[in-house]
Amino acid sequence: MTEWTVLGICGSLRRGSYNAALLDLVDGLSEGARVVGADLAGRLPLFDPDVENDERAWPDAVREFRARAEEAEGVVIATPEYAHGPAGVTKNALDWLVGSGGLVGRPTLLVSASPGQAGGMRAHTPLMPPLTLLGAILVDCVVVSRAGARTDASGRFTDPAVVDRVRLAVGELQEALGYAAHKRAPGVL
Amino acid sequence: MTEWTVLGICGSLRRGSYNAALLDLVDGLSEGARVVGADLAGRLPLFDPDVENDERAWPDAVREFRARAEEAEGVVIATPEYAHGPAGVTKNALDWLVGSGGLVGRPTLLVSASPGQAGGMRAHTPLMPPLTLLGAILVDCVVVSRAGARTDASGRFTDPAVVDRVRLAVGELQEALGYAAHKRAPGVL
Repeated sequence: MTEWTVLGICGSLRRGSYNAALLDLVDGLSEGARVVGADLAGRLPLFDPDVENDERAWPDAVREFRARAEEAEGVVIATPEYAHGPAGVTKNALDWLVGSGGLVGRPTLLVSASPGQAGGMRAHTPLMPPLTLLGAILVDCVVVSRAGARTDASGRFTDPAVVDRVRLAVGELQEALGYAAHKRAPGVL
Repeated sequence: MTEWTVLGICGSLRRGSYNAALLDLVDGLSEGARVVGADLAGRLPLFDPDVENDERAWPDAVREFRARAEEAEGVVIATPEYAHGPAGVTKNALDWLVGSGGLVGRPTLLVSASPGQAGGMRAHTPLMPPLTLLGAILVDCVVVSRAGARTDASGRFTDPAVVDRVRLAVGELQEALGYAAHKRAPGVL
């Protein structure tokens, strides 16, 4: 039974991306939720206010990304850390959502995987003001270092510590999704 | 006499962008320096490590941006603040420079213009760790609020306070360019 739809935002375009693998892991561990649209952030154009203001000019990826964001009850953002900050790709995707109010009240996970001993954490802090402005409810942040040693030959995360950590985060996300839905139910504040 | 070449990075794609106008103002006030390549950040694709690793696959904008960054003695970054952070476009441009060492030792100005009463400042802080990692020497940060009231009908900044502030920043940049060149001269440390 799939209950919730969760918008996936992947900040990495790399083939075999560890961050894309993290989104797959979140999807696989979510019994009551499905991650959708994870390929869209990588297909968006650079944010352009003139394009945003002319809906007829929207490329398909923009139209679809906005629609998925509006439908989704939750969000999971998987972002690489580049140059001690979040990937430009990740922030570019968020920039396309400012005009839509697309993340208001959405329980949100922020996750990062990195091949190095450290990495990911420095991608998270600069995203918190934008996520707050967008109205997202940040539920948990997960950092996975040494990703190469924790994936199998097909690139899936198999390390039990990673799986356990992400399972905990997914549990928090699902609990928050239920609470957010409860708040949205008629007559309940 | 043009002495220095300064790479321009514009994080806004909007027609009549206030940030593009700030770059023009920097260029106009720089007697010994010329701002180059300011249109390139907006023409870059989303950063993709697989493309970066295959130089034959580089789109023209990537090739030109890397070349301009390598030649330039200084940098001026004009970034809008979107959602309480720097535009994704701005960070995306920096992501394309990580693999090249393109900003090491380059005196750098960070400037932002915003139509609102406040804005710009929150775009600067998250860019400081990336600029530090890239080896840029941050010389000055300039924030221009209420940009609409400070430009003329053709979109140029004419407000004397803005012109004076940017002139001061340009002076700092030019002094730093001279000092950086002095350091690079043979036999001088």
